[in-house]
Amino acid sequence: MKIWLPAQECTLLPASFIRNPHIPRMEEDVLYHLGLGTKSHNLPAMFGDVKFVIVGGTPKRMEKLAIYLMGEIKHKLAAGTQLSDISEIADRYSMYKVGPILCVNHGMGNPSISILLHELIKLMHYARCKDPVFIRMGTCGGLGIPGGSVVISDGVLNDKLNAEHEFKILGNVVPRPARLDLTLARELNSLASPRDGFQTVIGKTYCADDFYEGQGRLDGAFCDYKEIDKLNWLKLLNERGVINIEMESSMFAALTDFAGIKAAIICVAILNRLNGDQIKESKETLMEWQERPGKLIARFIRKRLDIRENGGQSPLSAVPVQPQSPITTVPIRPQNPTSTTTIKSQTE
Amino acid sequence: MKIWLPAQECTLLPASFIRNPHIPRMEEDVLYHLGLGTKSHNLPAMFGDVKFVIVGGTPKRMEKLAIYLMGEIKHKLAAGTQLSDISEIADRYSMYKVGPILCVNHGMGNPSISILLHELIKLMHYARCKDPVFIRMGTCGGLGIPGGSVVISDGVLNDKLNAEHEFKILGNVVPRPARLDLTLARELNSLASPRDGFQTVIGKTYCADDFYEGQGRLDGAFCDYKEIDKLNWLKLLNERGVINIEMESSMFAALTDFAGIKAAIICVAILNRLNGDQIKESKETLMEWQERPGKLIARFIRKRLDIRENGGQSPLSAVPVQPQSPITTVPIRPQNPTSTTTIKSQTE
Repeated sequence: MKIWLPAQECTLLPASFIRNPHIPRMEEDVLYHLGLGTKSHNLPAMFGDVKFVIVGGTPKRMEKLAIYLMGEIKHKLAAGTQLSDISEIADRYSMYKVGPILCVNHGMGNPSISILLHELIKLMHYARCKDPVFIRMGTCGGLGIPGGSVVISDGVLNDKLNAEHEFKILGNVVPRPARLDLTLARELNSLASPRDGFQTVIGKTYCADDFYEGQGRLDGAFCDYKEIDKLNWLKLLNERGVINIEMESSMFAALTDFAGIKAAIICVAILNRLNGDQIKESKETLMEWQERPGKLIARFIRKRLDIRENGGQSPLSAVPVQPQSPITTVPIRPQNPTSTTTIKSQTE
Repeated sequence: MKIWLPAQECTLLPASFIRNPHIPRMEEDVLYHLGLGTKSHNLPAMFGDVKFVIVGGTPKRMEKLAIYLMGEIKHKLAAGTQLSDISEIADRYSMYKVGPILCVNHGMGNPSISILLHELIKLMHYARCKDPVFIRMGTCGGLGIPGGSVVISDGVLNDKLNAEHEFKILGNVVPRPARLDLTLARELNSLASPRDGFQTVIGKTYCADDFYEGQGRLDGAFCDYKEIDKLNWLKLLNERGVINIEMESSMFAALTDFAGIKAAIICVAILNRLNGDQIKESKETLMEWQERPGKLIARFIRKRLDIRENGGQSPLSAVPVQPQSPITTVPIRPQNPTSTTTIKSQTE
């Protein structure tokens, strides 16, 4: 059965991130897992100013990041308003918007981030966003680097040690390059400082589909290999330039690259896998480590927005901070009365 | 590189669900994503009575299920206590315990449920649970059945249309049977009633690693195939006995089977994929549909616990409902002060 059209024959819509000739024929597009739709929401009004899309694992981490970045870019909410989870009604992902920044959690693993990226890429299309940058932040296992190190990915390898993600489409295996923007990676790396109190390194990322056997751990429910087999495999990865392992990079790199969106991955290592498998740091230490990628992201966004360290904004700022879009006035469905997650925040 | 030991050579620990010779040598095992550990928690005291482990996609759905099942089995909490999310501190999954029932959310996709299952299977081992039954409930796309139908899986096919899951371990592809317990599937199916107001059907499940291209949808950010290609592929699946498509079944079936745990999958179809791709039902309709698998699960648990329809319990009940374990007294780390999710519930 060969019913696949090769990628070079597909339709890339003009000035768009999507490559799908069926989309323009749709009367309405419900972005089901985001709780948004083209008829129920004015997507250009709500999201047209988005320049930075930051995705990461858990809802709470992205909520914290949104609050942190709000302070970093001196974004003020209108009096009497508070930040709220835009996608709460869909009960799948949590999305927060702070001026030109979207913070969204992607759950764990390639399939989970795949659903989010399809809908975020369509959102960028419908909202007519210009040149958005996508950054994934998260945690990872380090290879040969101490816990707490920040890793910026300059490439991604899959389980075959190829720099691609293998999509399974209509019974066919369709490999696509898992490619990140190297200029963006270097720009992020250049924002690290010796005064940070942690090291930032740049290198390749191995993407696994499992936390235990898929990453060669000895402490899963199942393990049929020996410690020496694990160490040999980790060393092989390390020899290929891999300095960290996580679970979303190949899908993230492949889908953003296919969409023509500049993207980067910046993670903090929560252990050195060459020394062990178990994560035993205190909650407090892990929380502090998890904030480190956000610090570099904040510097990057401030630089791009031309916001000075003291908080002042240059008159040439390309993306003026705008009042929050009226997202709460266009619910896709009647609001679930049990959904009350909100973030109290600074107001003007 | 061939460093893999074939499955038949691996060590199945006596009277255990785990197959890992390294586990008995570990001084402590931190179940990182559950926020539990063998030194920080008395796992047999907390979980030794667990007989039913119900997993499903989102935290809210599992919270609702726990409250519903509490009523169904007439479980009373001690005066002055309320149900709380056991795994809240880990910020990955949400876990609720109602007597002999655990309800845990697994996120989306095989990798996400894989992490959960490794740690739940280890939890069953450490807690010395006897013959627990695992049931995955969730939503799915139906093939040739109307939205709202409940589907009980009697088999799982992967993207190669094989009844297995291919694990990627230390550079090798390791297929394991994706096998469900047919007796359990038939028992669940026998509990459906013509008075339910919805149909319950039994058949094969196709497991995809993506919601859009991976399921042959035309409405993702990318689509290089035509509608006729999609329909031909869906019909091919249907001819092989597939009546629904979701994203966690192959991992769930393979890991529970490998652990020797009896397991079933029961999902509600939220649309008929032969008629379209978009989910446009109202929130209210979807919410009602999503509760349907839980109704069959409640009947199954009541039957196994020998609880009569009127709520009385037979004196021969095999698993007496016990007061809730003192889970709140043994936090693995100091409780995060921002974590306050609780469920108010009926008390004695």
